[in-house]
Amino acid sequence: MNRMLRHFSVVVTLVMLSACASHFPVVETVVPPAPPPTPDALADWNDGPAKRAITDFVARVVKPGTPDYVPPEERIAVFDNDGTLWLEQPAYTQLVFTLQRVHELAPQHPEWKTQEPFRSVLKGNMAGVAASGEEGALKLLAATHAGMTTDQFSDIVHKWFASAKDHRFDRPYTELAYAPMIEVLRYLEANGFTNYIVTGGGVEFVREISESVYGIPPEHVIGSTIRYKYSVIDGVPTLTRIAQLANVDDGPGKPQTIQGVIGRRPLMAFGNSDGDLPMLEWTAGGSGPRFAALVHHTDATREYAYDRTSKIGKLDKALDEANSKGWTVIDMKSDWKTVFP
Amino acid sequence: MNRMLRHFSVVVTLVMLSACASHFPVVETVVPPAPPPTPDALADWNDGPAKRAITDFVARVVKPGTPDYVPPEERIAVFDNDGTLWLEQPAYTQLVFTLQRVHELAPQHPEWKTQEPFRSVLKGNMAGVAASGEEGALKLLAATHAGMTTDQFSDIVHKWFASAKDHRFDRPYTELAYAPMIEVLRYLEANGFTNYIVTGGGVEFVREISESVYGIPPEHVIGSTIRYKYSVIDGVPTLTRIAQLANVDDGPGKPQTIQGVIGRRPLMAFGNSDGDLPMLEWTAGGSGPRFAALVHHTDATREYAYDRTSKIGKLDKALDEANSKGWTVIDMKSDWKTVFP
Repeated sequence: MNRMLRHFSVVVTLVMLSACASHFPVVETVVPPAPPPTPDALADWNDGPAKRAITDFVARVVKPGTPDYVPPEERIAVFDNDGTLWLEQPAYTQLVFTLQRVHELAPQHPEWKTQEPFRSVLKGNMAGVAASGEEGALKLLAATHAGMTTDQFSDIVHKWFASAKDHRFDRPYTELAYAPMIEVLRYLEANGFTNYIVTGGGVEFVREISESVYGIPPEHVIGSTIRYKYSVIDGVPTLTRIAQLANVDDGPGKPQTIQGVIGRRPLMAFGNSDGDLPMLEWTAGGSGPRFAALVHHTDATREYAYDRTSKIGKLDKALDEANSKGWTVIDMKSDWKTVFP
Repeated sequence: MNRMLRHFSVVVTLVMLSACASHFPVVETVVPPAPPPTPDALADWNDGPAKRAITDFVARVVKPGTPDYVPPEERIAVFDNDGTLWLEQPAYTQLVFTLQRVHELAPQHPEWKTQEPFRSVLKGNMAGVAASGEEGALKLLAATHAGMTTDQFSDIVHKWFASAKDHRFDRPYTELAYAPMIEVLRYLEANGFTNYIVTGGGVEFVREISESVYGIPPEHVIGSTIRYKYSVIDGVPTLTRIAQLANVDDGPGKPQTIQGVIGRRPLMAFGNSDGDLPMLEWTAGGSGPRFAALVHHTDATREYAYDRTSKIGKLDKALDEANSKGWTVIDMKSDWKTVFP
């Protein structure tokens, strides 16, 4: 995979060209009526400043009758996905899906052998893919994410996740979510929070695994979207995915969709890159107590170490802002006892 | 108001040019853990086919261990707003807001005296407004719904609702929701359903009253949206409403946003016009038990009587489809004991 993924400039934008399909039987997590947080709710965290910042903040907002009390309906926590809840190196999972999907579909498209960007994808020549620019990215989007019904796309993604594996860790992508972050999701739910994923990835791609991996139901996943065409075909109402981006949920797109979909300013936000900065700013800028945190990838042994110059998950401006504003920086190496479940 | 509102053709589209602002302290309804439905949960309904259809359907899907059982997380009910949950005659509430807002702002805009469509609005000449076409509608949108922050818009709408009244009933718009439909909302919640409003109106306009009027929290209101610009102004993260429509949530827009935002196909859908037909079809077209209903305005004495030829809330094709498919048609005159609370 590493060799295939040397050049990202355009390809990275691909992930933003994502999208949407569901109707898979997802079982919603039932949020239990807030039990008292147990001392080991964050057992995969070392006792350090990040863990303390999280638990101190939660303790501060859940106590009725105190000045910082926030009622449960306003306890909204938002989480970036790639690099915050699961791994994003050496390539966003949805990009891997896209490239593998081209390989799968290639036998039905002999013309791809000579057409860019397909030719480059099939030869593993990522520089060639990058050279095809946005036009190429849109062609890949059209070939792999559009032209089918929402149900069909759901099925394709579902099947892909069942067999796809990360090469380095030799595990399905669905097992490469961060155990300490899953603990945070459960811990917040137990304290009356509602968690939302706000992802640059396609909303229907991420929904396919949000329940099983994170215990987050489809309606609490916000992400990039493509357009649908509604039509009644032979009496069957149908939503067909069409190859036009409706919304790219990265950077300024994150506060925009949070406002558009949730309509409340979050109380807590977790991200890991400059693309999450507006979401963190927007959250931290609300009145009363607010919490913003960055996952800092500092652990090349157990996961990856990258920040200011990384092509994927670049963390530069947001790290400066976190430092200057006193946001929580989660140091993967020192703060997490475990990385993957 | 009646005189002002003789010609609607373009103006009606205005309501679709709506949009978005919040951060008002809204208290989310706490859905109680399903108590057994009491016999008078729908006390404002006459015992007739519509009431029976609703209660029979709910009874059918909530019983664990039976073939039609649907788990709570999939019990999604969607409701159109204008004409389904509250009155929409003689003009959509948001249109009234738009026109009154032009009057309020006119002193700061002396140039409006000679500029269309403002000139016509100020003279109460709705034919003139209509003649200004889509360009005119977009100018009204820009003047009344854009150019301010989301918080500022929320404030404007909030204040307007506090004083605006419907002329015929001499009551605030917030008191002109349909009592029997509010009963349905509570009845469904008590049976483990989650209710969403899916409105052609602006999402932030409707959110301003969704909690107080319907007990529906902002995150369960889906509607038409305009674009936001995210920026940090003097250190303050800001979402500014800009005069571009992002999404018109009418007709085919309804199943599209249901899929985009909720990601589950609803179990029940309530509408009242041809603009709701795709939402009802999409709902009814799901597998297993599904419920689709139309509110038919048949009561000129207590509310209004209109359907096939009405310029607002035209109900023609959807009525035919309801009849041919056996959907529930709620006859306002015979099915409702009370109309307004």
